[in-house]
Amino acid sequence: MANSYRYVSKTATKTHMDFDYDGPSMKTTVPGPRSQVIHNVGAINFFCNYEESKGNYLVDVDNNRMLDIYTQISSIPIGYNHPALLKLMTNSSNLSTFVNRPALGILPPENFPDKLTESLLSVAPSGMTRVQTMACGSCSNENAYKAMFIWYRNKERGHSTPSHEDLTTCMINQAPGCPDLSILSFMGGFHGRTLGCLATTHSKSIHKLDVPSFDWPIAPFPRLQYPLEEFARENAQEEARCLEEVEDLIVKWRQKAKPVAGIVIEPIQAEGGDNHASPDFFRSLRKITRKPYRIFNTWMGDPSKNLFLAEVLNVIRRENLLEEVTRSGKALLNGLNELQAQYPGILSRARGQGTFCAIDICDDAKRNSILLKTRDKGVLLGGCGERSIRFRPALIFKEYHVHIFLNIFSDVLAQHK
Amino acid sequence: MANSYRYVSKTATKTHMDFDYDGPSMKTTVPGPRSQVIHNVGAINFFCNYEESKGNYLVDVDNNRMLDIYTQISSIPIGYNHPALLKLMTNSSNLSTFVNRPALGILPPENFPDKLTESLLSVAPSGMTRVQTMACGSCSNENAYKAMFIWYRNKERGHSTPSHEDLTTCMINQAPGCPDLSILSFMGGFHGRTLGCLATTHSKSIHKLDVPSFDWPIAPFPRLQYPLEEFARENAQEEARCLEEVEDLIVKWRQKAKPVAGIVIEPIQAEGGDNHASPDFFRSLRKITRKPYRIFNTWMGDPSKNLFLAEVLNVIRRENLLEEVTRSGKALLNGLNELQAQYPGILSRARGQGTFCAIDICDDAKRNSILLKTRDKGVLLGGCGERSIRFRPALIFKEYHVHIFLNIFSDVLAQHK
Repeated sequence: MANSYRYVSKTATKTHMDFDYDGPSMKTTVPGPRSQVIHNVGAINFFCNYEESKGNYLVDVDNNRMLDIYTQISSIPIGYNHPALLKLMTNSSNLSTFVNRPALGILPPENFPDKLTESLLSVAPSGMTRVQTMACGSCSNENAYKAMFIWYRNKERGHSTPSHEDLTTCMINQAPGCPDLSILSFMGGFHGRTLGCLATTHSKSIHKLDVPSFDWPIAPFPRLQYPLEEFARENAQEEARCLEEVEDLIVKWRQKAKPVAGIVIEPIQAEGGDNHASPDFFRSLRKITRKPYRIFNTWMGDPSKNLFLAEVLNVIRRENLLEEVTRSGKALLNGLNELQAQYPGILSRARGQGTFCAIDICDDAKRNSILLKTRDKGVLLGGCGERSIRFRPALIFKEYHVHIFLNIFSDVLAQHK
Repeated sequence: MANSYRYVSKTATKTHMDFDYDGPSMKTTVPGPRSQVIHNVGAINFFCNYEESKGNYLVDVDNNRMLDIYTQISSIPIGYNHPALLKLMTNSSNLSTFVNRPALGILPPENFPDKLTESLLSVAPSGMTRVQTMACGSCSNENAYKAMFIWYRNKERGHSTPSHEDLTTCMINQAPGCPDLSILSFMGGFHGRTLGCLATTHSKSIHKLDVPSFDWPIAPFPRLQYPLEEFARENAQEEARCLEEVEDLIVKWRQKAKPVAGIVIEPIQAEGGDNHASPDFFRSLRKITRKPYRIFNTWMGDPSKNLFLAEVLNVIRRENLLEEVTRSGKALLNGLNELQAQYPGILSRARGQGTFCAIDICDDAKRNSILLKTRDKGVLLGGCGERSIRFRPALIFKEYHVHIFLNIFSDVLAQHK
């Protein structure tokens, strides 16, 4: 079915993007024959050729080239095989960081404190003067929770010296050494899948089913109506309702003798459906945690990943990627709003910050059919929540990539009218 | 004080060890002045120069060169800056594996199943035909526990289809969706420090203090007497006692309505004091777990680490490192037994498998003083348990490295008489 009109790129500039492809190129439907012959398990979408993947484009083993707006569940910040990262790998002075993984907590390399200052701390929220790396998001959250519990107990004791009873009971998992404290989380939240994180994750039952958990309080996350400017009053009421609920839960759990030691919340609730809340809402929830020495494991992160992070930050600054991504994010959200006006029966609640955008589809079945159709036309998107589509492009996703996507997406929508 | 005699190396062969240093070389006590000027926190021993470290020798920022028999809490398998690993880094066909970290669970590289077969599965216990990578030991254990719980609940249900009540209650951390199941662990065990792993860790109170936990059963780990051949009867009785305790706990927790879904135990209880048990003991405890699709996270491990593992295995085979390490392990244990006979007031319970050896010191204070004195003479060792010293050399630790260590260690012991 023909599409009513075409989005044309206003900015044809391709600065620093020589390593990007010109557009999608599909040889087969996905997963293609080669992907299907390789030993396969439930979750796998298809097999990839990471050597051939470049910039915004993921190439699969059937030589299908897809515009990737999901980027490995949002973990390819500046695109595939970025020349700056390849160059970093060939710099011989970096080799020893890769081949000698240190126990950072006891035997860090000389330059590690400086490296962290140049990388993570250079982009930390103001007021955050120290940072502790961990190997993955779940381990980071598990240790953040431990920091909350330790901070709370030290405050309760009035000092950090445990009693003999604390020391003996904790060895057998009993109070007071292992206190009955709780972390307040939000329905729809996702904070990881290790047992501690999982007790604060409430996005999909498949994550939690059959796994023992903690009796910890769960508050509702605001459900905003869009466009925001039309529903200012309703959304303010909704946020007030959720904040009240948080306060009630904190009282209830204190009465249950399972006091809340801390709160965990995502700035944008992603896995749960890309749910946003206002800055005011978050200010009301802010808590401070500490990071004492007891946050410790063998590796405490991986300095070779920090090498990549530092270079990623260099590229972001050198190429003004935040400016670029603000522009392409605006173009993406405008395009989504236009399509929403054109297909009110299918699309709703277009929303986003920068290119971290999402839109709802009328139902789950149509959402999934649209995702597959769009993929077969060479654009990779992700789903989240019950019927949302989420956009997670790399920071090198330019305005002309937005137009490539919008043209393909509007063709797919035309087929779903 | 002079030492009674010298250990001399019988095998001066240095095959493939050109990248190793000849011996320790100490410029200062440790931590030296440079280590002390760098911003320091509680746990840090000293700062390292990983570029200059080679083979069995760790070089610090004060240019002290130490024979490393602890290897970053046992995570440098074939020594520092092994030429084979440096070569791997310069192979351009490996670059994309480092710079494009995939979400392995959904978008694996084409060759990943083969790579796992060549690496991990090639050294898996017989009968283990599948493997799931994770990013660290804690995440691996957390997911092993989840596999146990899922397996147990499916067995209870008689199928893997959850009820509506399962699906709704799990979202709010309640039974039956989040069932009250338990994992049986052993006193002295260490399985990681995330909340699930931590509930099965019982080595040091500092790991557990102030962190909420689960009411799960904890069995005693056998406390063997040495030399084994002299205490065969007593040790058999001790292992029988622990096995009985395990059986009793499983019954007790079933009566508590917190049935045991699985058991976790270390082949050698390391952090808890290098405690060994007999093969018979472990056979009585063997359980089978499964790995269904629900074991999932964003990265599911890191293919760049598998590149290293595959090359490490190549080196182990090419250089017959298992043979070598069996020989040096025997030399190490013999030397420890000789010193134990010479210093019965200080040393006891010399034990080990290969070079994974340990020995007990009369008390904690003397243990720590011996560790520091030995370090100042250029040998790095680790402590574990209440008064044990543990040995965790790399697999390139040869007989002549054993002799370097034994000479220095016997000098230190002579000073502690």
